[in-house]
Order: sequence, then C-alpha cells, then structure tokens
Amino acid sequence: MSQTTFEEISAADFFYRNRDIAGFTNPSRAIFVAIRELMENALDAAESAKIPPDIYVRLSFEGEASAETQIYKLMVADNGTGVDPRHIPSAFGQILYGSKYKLKQQRGTFGLGGKMALLYGQITTHQPATIISSTGFTKIYSYKLMIDIQRNRPLILDRKVQINKDQWRGTVVEFSLEGDYLRAMAKIVDYFKQTAMVNPYANLTFVDPKGRLYKFTRVTKEMPQPPKETLPHPYGVDVELLQRLIQVTPYRNMLEFLRKHFHRVGEITAQKFLEFAGISPSRNPKKLSHEEIVRLMHMLKKFKDFLPPDASCLSPLGEELLKVGIEKELKPEFMAVHQRKPATYSGHPFIIEVGIAYGGEIPKTGSFIVYRFANRIPLLYDEASDVSVRVISDMNWRRYRVLPDMPLAILVHICSTKVPYKTVGKEFIADRPEVRKEIANGLREVARQIQHFMSKQEHVDRERKRLGVFNKYLPKIAQFSTSLAGKEKQPDIEKLLASVKKYGAEEA
Amino acid sequence: MSQTTFEEISAADFFYRNRDIAGFTNPSRAIFVAIRELMENALDAAESAKIPPDIYVRLSFEGEASAETQIYKLMVADNGTGVDPRHIPSAFGQILYGSKYKLKQQRGTFGLGGKMALLYGQITTHQPATIISSTGFTKIYSYKLMIDIQRNRPLILDRKVQINKDQWRGTVVEFSLEGDYLRAMAKIVDYFKQTAMVNPYANLTFVDPKGRLYKFTRVTKEMPQPPKETLPHPYGVDVELLQRLIQVTPYRNMLEFLRKHFHRVGEITAQKFLEFAGISPSRNPKKLSHEEIVRLMHMLKKFKDFLPPDASCLSPLGEELLKVGIEKELKPEFMAVHQRKPATYSGHPFIIEVGIAYGGEIPKTGSFIVYRFANRIPLLYDEASDVSVRVISDMNWRRYRVLPDMPLAILVHICSTKVPYKTVGKEFIADRPEVRKEIANGLREVARQIQHFMSKQEHVDRERKRLGVFNKYLPKIAQFSTSLAGKEKQPDIEKLLASVKKYGAEEA
Repeated sequence: MSQTTFEEISAADFFYRNRDIAGFTNPSRAIFVAIRELMENALDAAESAKIPPDIYVRLSFEGEASAETQIYKLMVADNGTGVDPRHIPSAFGQILYGSKYKLKQQRGTFGLGGKMALLYGQITTHQPATIISSTGFTKIYSYKLMIDIQRNRPLILDRKVQINKDQWRGTVVEFSLEGDYLRAMAKIVDYFKQTAMVNPYANLTFVDPKGRLYKFTRVTKEMPQPPKETLPHPYGVDVELLQRLIQVTPYRNMLEFLRKHFHRVGEITAQKFLEFAGISPSRNPKKLSHEEIVRLMHMLKKFKDFLPPDASCLSPLGEELLKVGIEKELKPEFMAVHQRKPATYSGHPFIIEVGIAYGGEIPKTGSFIVYRFANRIPLLYDEASDVSVRVISDMNWRRYRVLPDMPLAILVHICSTKVPYKTVGKEFIADRPEVRKEIANGLREVARQIQHFMSKQEHVDRERKRLGVFNKYLPKIAQFSTSLAGKEKQPDIEKLLASVKKYGAEEA
Repeated sequence: MSQTTFEEISAADFFYRNRDIAGFTNPSRAIFVAIRELMENALDAAESAKIPPDIYVRLSFEGEASAETQIYKLMVADNGTGVDPRHIPSAFGQILYGSKYKLKQQRGTFGLGGKMALLYGQITTHQPATIISSTGFTKIYSYKLMIDIQRNRPLILDRKVQINKDQWRGTVVEFSLEGDYLRAMAKIVDYFKQTAMVNPYANLTFVDPKGRLYKFTRVTKEMPQPPKETLPHPYGVDVELLQRLIQVTPYRNMLEFLRKHFHRVGEITAQKFLEFAGISPSRNPKKLSHEEIVRLMHMLKKFKDFLPPDASCLSPLGEELLKVGIEKELKPEFMAVHQRKPATYSGHPFIIEVGIAYGGEIPKTGSFIVYRFANRIPLLYDEASDVSVRVISDMNWRRYRVLPDMPLAILVHICSTKVPYKTVGKEFIADRPEVRKEIANGLREVARQIQHFMSKQEHVDRERKRLGVFNKYLPKIAQFSTSLAGKEKQPDIEKLLASVKKYGAEEA
C-alpha cells in the first residue's frame, strides 16, 4: 500500500501554485492583469476619498528575459486615500489581508489581484516591490517588501520616512515583472480607452515601454455618488452568516436582532416576519439551537414581504455620465442610454446600465462592438461566455431595424456589491436569470430608441432619393417647358423643390 | 476623508465568500460539483492503492428547503487507501491541507474540492459531516466534523473507534447539503456514464433520490500504470521554486544540485548546462545571490538541450483501455483511437489521447458529440471555451468525408501533472499552443482512419447500388433471353451476379 503524506500550504502558496485562476496565465496576459489590478485599486482609493482620480501608470523596459519575454518595471501612482503605515506591509505583502471584504460596491472583489501582481513579479524577477504612501499628514512612508510565500507573511527589506512638505496624499506601487508587452499592447490600450469611457471624471496617463504617451483627460469633475457599505439582505443570508451575526450581536431579542443587522428590515417587517416564521419577538438570538438557525435561514428566504435592496450601496454611473463617456470616446451620430431600477439576485442588489451608439467614430466590423463593464471595470476577455453577449445574440435586432454590418456599439454596465464573476480573473459575468432579464429589458429600451432613429433615417434617406429625382429632372422639365412655351424666363425651381419637401428633409 | 479598515480572512473564509469560483454557483451546479469532487477523491484513493475502484454514491432526499431547492444527504464510499486517523480532521475540515500538493498526475489538483463540498453543505444545512475510514488495520475510525470557517480549523464533535473485524479498507463520507437534484440529474447521470467510459476498470454505483439505481460495472481489471511523483523539469522552474530547493538541498555543489533535484538532468546534461550558463560546477548553491538565482532561472529556460519530460509521472489510459471504454458505452460501428507521445508546456509533461467513433449507439444530433476528459475526469460544462472544441471546429472535416449530421463522437483526453484548467471549477482547458498542437495532430491521425472507413463505406454503398441494379434486371434479361432463344432452362443468375461483385460487396 502506498503511503499518503499530508501537508498544509499557505494561501499565498495556493495562489502561487495556481496563478492561472487569478489570470496570470502567460507573459502577455500577466502584464495586462497586473496593470489592471493596480489601476483598479488606484481608482478605488481615489473614489473612496471622493476626489476625481489622477492615475499615472508607467511601464518601462528593463531587459530581455527569454526569446519571447522581457523584464519590465511597472509603476502605478494614485492620488487616493493612502494607506496607513501600520497596514502597508500586510496590505501589499500578505494574501487574504485587505480592506475589500465588505458589502460595498468596489472594483476589487477578491482583495487578491494587487498582491497577486506583486507575487507574480517576485517569482519571475525576484525583486522587491516598493510602496510609497501617505494619508496626507506630516509623513511619507516608503517600504521595500517581498512576500514570504510559504508562510504568507510580508518581508520588510527597507523602510524610510520622509517629511511630507506638500501634504501629498496617495500611493505609489513600483515593482518588476516578466511579461510580453508587445502581445498585450492592444488589449492594454483598449483597457485604458474603455476605462476612460466609464470613468469620465478621471485623468489617466499611461507611458508605455516605447515611451509613447497615452493620455485620457477628464471631461467632467462630477463623480457618481460613492457607494455606502450596507447590511446583508435577508434573502442572501446563509447559516454561517447568521451564526456570525448571532455571535457578535449586542441585541438580546429577535426583533432588535433583525432590525439592526439586516438591510431594509424595519420594525413592522421584522414583526410580520417573526409572526410568519412562528418565532417570538422576545426570543434571545443567542439561545437559538442549530436546528432553529437553519430553520430561520429557510424562513428568511421563504418570506415574500421583504423590500428589495435599495441602491444606496450601489454607485451606478448614471445616464448623464454614461452619455459623456460614450460621446468622449466614440463621438457617435446617435446614442441612447438607459439605467434600470435596482434589482437583486440571491439577495445581492445590482443595477444594469446600457447604452447603444451608432455611426461617428464607431467602425464597421461586420458585427456589433460590445463594451462590457462591471463596477466601472472594462471586461476584455472571454466575451463569448459573458451573459451580455448571450443576451445580445439572442435578440431579434432586425425588428429594431438594426443589422450587424452597421457601425454600432452596445455598452452594458453591471454594478453590484457582488458582481457574479465566474472566475477570479474577473473576465466574464455568470448567466444568472435575474441579471439576464435586466440586461434584456434595458437593451430593449435603447433598441426601441434606435429603431425610432433608424426609421427616421430611412425616411430621410427616402426623401433624399425622392428629392434627388426631382433635382435631376425638374430643371430639364422646366427648360423643356419654357422653350416649348416659347418663353425666355424659366420658372423658379427652388420654390417647386421646396414645395415637394417633406418631414425631415431639411436635414438632407 | 474616509477611514479604510483592514482585516485578515482565513482561506476557508475566502472560499466561503467566493464559492462561485470553485463551481458552487447555484443549487443544481452545487449538487453536481459535490458528487464530482467526492467521486474523484474516491477514485484517486483506490488507484493510489493499486486496486480497481469500487465506488458507491447515494443521494437521498431529506426535506424541502425552499420552493425550488431541497436538502439531500450525500454518501460516497470507496475501497481506497483510507486516511490515517491523525489526518482525518484536517484532511476533511481544513482548507489548503491535503495530500494533493505534489508533482503527480491526479484528478484532484487544487486539494480543495472535497472540502468545499463539505463547507457548502455546512453553510446550507449546518449539519456536521461524518467521515468513516480505515487503512485496513485493526481499527475503524469515525469522526463527526464541522469547519470553523473564520479560523479555518476542523471542529471535532464526536469520535468513535471500532474493531475492524473484516479488515475493511476505505473511506465513507456522508453529509447534508442543499441542492436541486431534478435540474442536475441529466448532468450527473452523464457524468457517471462518461466516468465509466474512461475508467472501465471501476465499479460505479449511484442511487439517486428517487431510488433509481445506476450501475456501471467494470469490464476489465486491468488498470493503467499508476503515475509516479516526479521532480520539477528545468523548463518549468521559477525563482520561488529554485529558492525552496536551495533551502532544503543537502548538496553543496551546483552539479549535484542540478542532478538530484531536476527531472531528466543527468551528469552530462548538468555539465553542459553549467558550461552554457557560465557557472562553476563546484559552486555552492546556498551561496548564490538573488541576482544569480534569477539569472539561473533564465538560463534554465534558455538552454536548448534538456530532454523533454518522460511520461513515467503520467498515467494515460492507453489505446486498449480507451477502446474498451468507448466500446462499452457507445457500441460504435467503427472506432479509431490514438495516443500521442509525451509533450510538454512550460515544463509540465502531458499526453493527449483521442478517439473517434461512428454509428452504433451514437445519436445523430446535427453536430459531433464531443467527450472531453482530463486526468480521467469528464468535463461537462463550458464546452465552447475548451481548447478541444476549438480545435475540432477549426478542422476541415469534409476533407475526411465526415459531416456534422453523421452519428459521430470525438473523445479527447489530456493527462498531465498540471492540467491547464482555467477555473478552480475544473470546467475547461486553456488554449495553450503546445496543447492545441498535440490535440490537432492526434485528431488528424484518427480522422485519416475514419476517412479510410468512410471511403470504404462509400465503395460498399456504390457496390450495393450496382448489385441492386443487376439484381433487379438480370432475372428479367435472363428470362427474356431464355424465351428469345426458345430454351427452357434459364442461365444461373447467381453465378453471373457473383462475377460482377467487386471488393467488399460480400458485406453488402
């Protein structure tokens, strides 16, 4: 019989062994993902300080690594909240340590990506990362860090403190990594362009290894309302969460327990629910047995009268900013945007925003161009598996007078406290029925608007053709009839032409 | 300015919060994944003891959970190695603790799935799991366990020891979970059927909640050679791994260090490499600087003369067993199988096996039926994203006289010490160029064989038609010419028919 040996590995070690699942699959993808993860942390940091983000990203060439890959230095600087110096080592050098484990709409959801980028840099170049940060007070802190992967702990190699003369606030992350920029380039530039589209209040600067400068300048200083942290909704609760709440609650009766720990449960709803579930309002939650907790969870899911989650914890872009973003990047001839009302899946609130744009700088590619966003992150990979693309391909676009060979772009944005990603790499959204329905309804709304525009366009086209015919033959007829009548002066054709013009033709 | 708070979460907590990424997306998928993960552990346990697996799976209805979901009890029993009682609590109650963190071909790769199933059961039903196991000696141990998710530690609720009168060996896992069996049913039955196809030496029994019995009986006791644990190949090494090896090595010179810690590096190869890299053979590896370690890694990747990994660490099914499996489940009219030679991607060895089958019990569906396997696991979800399906759809099948409306099944099996899954849910294989090439070459080989069969079929069909014509008219002609010649006895038509028969027609 063979001997089975067991061992324990750290969380850092798990992700080190399985970096594919966080998106670090190959040198080109790795460099894309590293930039993306740090950009998103930078945007989150600025937005949580309620200031329009100024993000500076520089990727510079350091040397050849192999025939196909190079070593780069990546630097990302933001003007965000900054990180308290006590937390810098763990926030950047310890997997599963972070500030993102909250019920709040954020770009980062796994609290993993930034650290995975540093970890990937370390295992490919073995250089320490440098973190410089200040929360805007008197000092600026710099750390040189590596990750002890086997123990999942930060290793501090150097630490410096400087005086913060200019009251600078923000964070700068700099580290080396192996990658293949040439292959990743198109996706990276696309990523910046699309990020600018849904973050029109941000300044984004990217300097690439060739020294090329990509600058995306803000067109507005107006920012969407920042999302609030929220309580769990009763429909999304499981036994583990109930137990944790019971453990920490200071309340000694079920009525208060429900009112204080759940989203949108007020006194009356709590009373109605307890009656429905047959639980006494004065019951002490800490005295519930295992079986009663399980039953409580099932009853919470079965009760029909909880209000849906409100959107205060969500921060959609809003129709105005969406328009500004589309206008800025695509300059279309026509566009329509629509924001759906908040909806919910498994207790998680979400809002769908959609846009459709026609003409202008949108190229004809033989199929619609689809822009997918989640919590203001562009999603660029694995399009075919995404719910939005499935909904779009299931729609009967011909009905809306829209054909695939038109220069048409469709934009879908989902924002949620818990975006249903199917992978840690945040590449595509799972096909949840509630999400699918909201996307379909939103798209139908903007599709109707473009249908309207298209019909009008067709009228205009038809009119243009009709007027073309008149334009061509009227002068000849006029000439002919003038000479036939033996007159010198031809009748006023302009007047005649004006008299046959119909609706909309003045635009022709 | 807003306050940012930081916290550390355990690995169990991370996967509790993000169970979607391990495949536990919804009640129907969860029940499928739970069965699959425990089945795979059971098969691995039997195979590592070199005995043909006997796996018994029972899913029984416990009660309603909500309008759409039910509570089930899942029991999986195997005849494998058993688990040493010291390890039972952590092996089943602690995430990232296990026996699968090795360079060896195994079904489980993340050491996560079984525990995720128990964790999912716990958070949906809050019942403890029961583990009964014996390594075949004098005692049988039973544990009742739960997982302390916040601390990632097993909680032992009960422990019993019994005398093992019959020297039973194996493991039984039993726990409750919420799920939707009705929706998962088709996939689950399919999973068993396909597992039986590539594990023809296993007995699989499944009793479903309706009491239906699905029994897949072994057709052979011959098992593939079990895979061996292997050393890392120099092409697949990164700085972290080099550092770990340097830390633990007892060898004090580079020549020995390379020879003893790397796959397929002998004395001569090690010498050649050290010369290529400009490193002295007597150099002490423990004295290498950071920069030298990084350089060593790059030189290892650049050196062209390392032998490719050998296949001793891989356990392909083999052409004979593949045929037996296909015959058993599909009973085709024609089949061809092919095993490729070992290949490698990023230093990980892999072998591709393919099969093609026509007719018999294969239904006509309007497109080819594709069976995908990895380390003898069927892959059932996200087919469109899998590299095999892409290769198949890129091939010009018409060239091989094969059309999508034929009753045709294609089977692709990859075995590797590191299957390049794109998700923890083990749903599909990433499109690595080396893997793609091997699949394409394998498929071309079996495609040529089916082309041969199809041409022969066409000949036979044509011959059948030709003979049909003769069969129809020869008797009339014979009759006519007999009466024309004024004779009584007609000539022997059978002889005539035989004389016009060509190749293959005797089968007609």
